[in-house]
Parts: sequence; structure tokens; C-alpha cells
Amino acid sequence: MNSKWVQTFGNLLKCSQVALVTHVFPDGDAYGSLLGLKNILEQHGVEVFAYVEDKNSNGKFSFLPGYETLITFDSNTDRQFPMAVVLDCGEKKRVAGGNWIFEHATKIINIDHHISNSFFGHDNIVSEKFSSTCELIWYLAKRFTELITNESATCLITGIMTDTGNFLYDNTSAQTFRASADLIDKNADIKTVKFNLFHSKSLSNIRLLGYAIQNLQIILGGKVAFLNLDKYTMDQFNVSYEDLDDFVAFIRDIEGVEVAILLKETKNKQIKISLRSKSYFDVNKFAQEFNGGGHKKAAGALSNENMESTEKLVIDLLKNYF
Amino acid sequence: MNSKWVQTFGNLLKCSQVALVTHVFPDGDAYGSLLGLKNILEQHGVEVFAYVEDKNSNGKFSFLPGYETLITFDSNTDRQFPMAVVLDCGEKKRVAGGNWIFEHATKIINIDHHISNSFFGHDNIVSEKFSSTCELIWYLAKRFTELITNESATCLITGIMTDTGNFLYDNTSAQTFRASADLIDKNADIKTVKFNLFHSKSLSNIRLLGYAIQNLQIILGGKVAFLNLDKYTMDQFNVSYEDLDDFVAFIRDIEGVEVAILLKETKNKQIKISLRSKSYFDVNKFAQEFNGGGHKKAAGALSNENMESTEKLVIDLLKNYF
Repeated sequence: MNSKWVQTFGNLLKCSQVALVTHVFPDGDAYGSLLGLKNILEQHGVEVFAYVEDKNSNGKFSFLPGYETLITFDSNTDRQFPMAVVLDCGEKKRVAGGNWIFEHATKIINIDHHISNSFFGHDNIVSEKFSSTCELIWYLAKRFTELITNESATCLITGIMTDTGNFLYDNTSAQTFRASADLIDKNADIKTVKFNLFHSKSLSNIRLLGYAIQNLQIILGGKVAFLNLDKYTMDQFNVSYEDLDDFVAFIRDIEGVEVAILLKETKNKQIKISLRSKSYFDVNKFAQEFNGGGHKKAAGALSNENMESTEKLVIDLLKNYF
Repeated sequence: MNSKWVQTFGNLLKCSQVALVTHVFPDGDAYGSLLGLKNILEQHGVEVFAYVEDKNSNGKFSFLPGYETLITFDSNTDRQFPMAVVLDCGEKKRVAGGNWIFEHATKIINIDHHISNSFFGHDNIVSEKFSSTCELIWYLAKRFTELITNESATCLITGIMTDTGNFLYDNTSAQTFRASADLIDKNADIKTVKFNLFHSKSLSNIRLLGYAIQNLQIILGGKVAFLNLDKYTMDQFNVSYEDLDDFVAFIRDIEGVEVAILLKETKNKQIKISLRSKSYFDVNKFAQEFNGGGHKKAAGALSNENMESTEKLVIDLLKNYF
């Protein structure tokens, strides 16, 4: 391991107090790395304050050990931290409570796996060779194997499983599997993780998927799968905008389909364009046509046109590619 | 490792000719272990004849390296084998070409991971501590690491991924992840495996799933999800009986559902009852009410009543359990 990383992680273990923070709209890797690292540091006697923007933002991850200890930013505090760790954030503007944490911490350590990371920390432990920030935390902590408890193992494997689509995305490496094996040896509560992540789909969400499939369009010679969902339909099925992430991945898995597109109407009548590709199509590049972006196989953009116009625009533009 | 296993596997490597066979209606673990072991033995100079009942039985696995070399049983041959290996078969009656292979081989080695295995071989390498027969083959061969090529690694990881539901079933252990890591290090073509197993769902199958969800019944206080599909509907969507395995697992994943049931009409008008449970319900026991069986969380049975009567019977019986 990079000797600078060893030194940085060692310094962290020596602190008396540390603040941890992750990105806005935290996902499994954000919560997993936040709570996993918190638990590891606590085993070493560090007092840890783990912050999220909104404590009740995502009940989906409330099963994680330590979730109840999360706190929100308090702008009236004069608490200063000798050290703050920003987890799973590629850029400064995505850091939850950004200004607050940068003002209240003497030193910022940036731990992340996004290729786009801008190295905004005083120290940066950043590499895209990890499936997830959780895998990176495992890698840093595994030399101190006694620090990894069943609680932190449960948190870390959650981030690995969510960020790899349960070991299906291209970021799954031999190292990802070895990390998972080690975390199971540390008694990660994999049963609870799987139950909450994969075996608790809401019935209304399933019903909406059934309806959506009935309206699925397969166009451009079978290469493109296209879905749109307006707010009226989502309301009828009692499904919120945020719960539709799986739909676009689901339709990408159809035989012959290279690009999957979901248009969904936001509360304020914009259209969110979600794009996924299977092998060769660069959806990041395509999303730029709408001032959006992301990764080669998963990207998004926002349109201010209505559903009908956005659909026409997207399909017309796609015709140039196929 | 068990010293008897080392001796048995060592004897196999010393043969000049070996026949390999697996179970009828081969799945990913059957094809994977058959072709994986074939390749490993060939690296050691053994001449291998790998048999399947019907060469064209399941095109789904034709991407596996060596698939084209599979042969079918020929009752006119007088070929005798010093050794035959039966892979992934819990019982003698499930061995494809059962009589043929038992008549033509001097010695039978039984390699399997089913808890119900009846130890029918002259030598038996059998343990339910492996997710799959493929994981067991990896375990046997890993001391001879030079024998594992990218081709055999591709075959073996296929069986691991199919038999664990891509690492989601309870049989996924730390060892399963370590086996997968090793096979990726051996350049298993994981991209091709994932493409064929998970990213090539047929459009007609997806359309039928959408239709089925519209007709999904959630009964007995939300604990039971119930689907039935008659032959007329399957024909309309151009989906065959064999392609419906995923549906019952899909509806089991609904929040609050403990038991998922799919009734499907076979060609000869029987009703196949497919049962899955999520955590505590023993579907194997329930299937016995219909003279069926299987595992605690996955079982099946056949009914000679029509769809309507079978549905009534199943639901009435279930009421005693909830």
C-alpha cells in the first residue's frame, strides 16, 4: 500500500475527535463508509461525530448498525475538529454541509473511489481501483484486523453490494470478492443486508413496473428501450420519483438492447432523463447534449421541456447514433 | 483437505481416458462443472469425453468454452472407460444416460454439493459446504493452479453465479467469494458470463412478466404472493414453460411476502406448482402435500387438477399455515 495512505490513515487513528461527512442524498456506499469508518475509529478510542444532511433522508439504510447515532449539522455550534474525513465525494460541491465542515475542521482527509475526484482534501486517499469507498476503507483497515467488528463489516459490505449492483457491475474485481470474503469472516450480517437491499421491494413499485412494461417502447431496431413516467402515473401508483432507479437498469437487461432510457417527471415539472448502456454506447457523452453527464454506462440529465417534447428530442438525437 | 479427496482427485489426473456426465436438464452448475473439469483434466493430458443427454437442450449455456465438444450417449458403442465422473447429481436416477454410464465405466467418482446426495459412487467427493459443484471443483483443483486456464475459470464461475443466484442465496460463503476472486485472477471471462446470464432477458419474457404483475394476487395478509399462468397466455406471449423460473423468485422479493407461488400449465395440462419462501416457511414440507419436494426455501410439485381447482386447493391448504 501507498506509504502516504498508511501515514494518513495512521494519523486518523491517533486523533481524539474526528468528524465524518459524506455526500448529499447518501446512498449505500455513503452510509456504509460513514458508519463503517465511524465504528473502526471508535474501536481505536477515537470520538467520532458522523454527519448527514438530513437524518431521515433515506429509511432504506436505517438497518445499518450505528444509523441512530448520525447527527445533522448545527450551524450554531462553535465545535472545531482537528480532523474531518469526507467520504465518497468526487467534488467539493457534493459534500453535505460543505461550508460548515470546511469551516469547522483544521484538516480534511478526502477518501473516495470516483475517477473524477478533484483531490480537494489536505490529504487524499483516492483511487478508482476500488469498487466503492467501502472497499477502500476495508483495504485501509485490514492491516488492523482487530478493529473490524461485525458492525463495521456489515456497513462496509453494504456499500460494496450497492455500488457493484450486487457484484454485477464492471467495477467488481477479484479484490472486491476478497474484501467481501474477509467481511463475512468478520461476521458481517449479510442476511440482514440482503433482506433490506434486495428482498423488500415495495408492492406499489412492483405494480408500477408491471404497468411500465406494458408501455415499454423498443425502438431503433431493438437497440433502445424507452420508458416514460409522468407525475400523475407515479401518484396513482403511490410511487415517488426517487424510487425508480431500478427501472432503467431493468430494461437495459433486455436481449439486444444497448441503451435504456427512462424519462420521469419531477415535482416541479422538469423531466429527468436517466440513461444506461450495456456495452459500447457512451451515455455520458449523450447526456452532454442536455448539459448532463455521469459515467460511460450510467448518466443523467434534466430537461426543461415537457415530456412529449423531451421524448421527441431524445429519440431524434439518438437516431444520429444508430 | 480430506486426504481421501486428494487421493481420488489425484487418481483422476492419472487416467488416460475419463468420461464425465451430469444430471438431466443441465443448469449452469451442471454445464460449468462438466466443461470446467473437462478442461482441467485435458491440461493434464487426460482424454475426456463429456456427455450430455441432448446437445441442444439449453442454448442458454452455449457460450461456455468447450460447449461444442459435448457429445451424446451412443448405445451402439462398446467403449469402456476406466473412470467416469458424475457431477452435480444428488441421486442415481438424475444421472443423464444413467444406465449407459454405469455399464460403460469401471469406476464411478461422484462429485457433488447436494445435502441429499446418496453416495452412489465408488469414490465420493461430496459436501454441502460448497455453494455449487463448480466451487468444489475449484477447491479440488486449486492446488494445481497451473491446470486452471481462463476457459475452465469461465466455466467454473458460471456455476457459482447460477447456483448462488449471483451471490444472493444463503449458500454464498466467504469461500464462495474467495473462489470467485481466484477465478477472476485466472482471467475468467466474467463479462461474457454476466452478459449471457443476466443481461439477455428476452423481450417476450419481460412483456409476460409485466402482464403477470398486473394479475398478481397478494393474499393472506400480504404474506403470500400468487401468480398463475395458463398455456394460452404463455403461447400468446411466445414464452415457454421452461422460461418462467425467475418469476417466482421475483415476486418473493416483495416487502412482507414470505411465500411466493407460481402455478403454470404444462404441455400436457398438468399444473406445476413452484414455491419459494423468504425466511422461515418450509416450502419443502408444504410441497409434500402434493407429493412434491425440494429445499426449505425452494420446492415444487405437480398437480393433476385443473388450474382453478389447484389454485383453490393450494390457497385453502396455505390458510392452515398463516
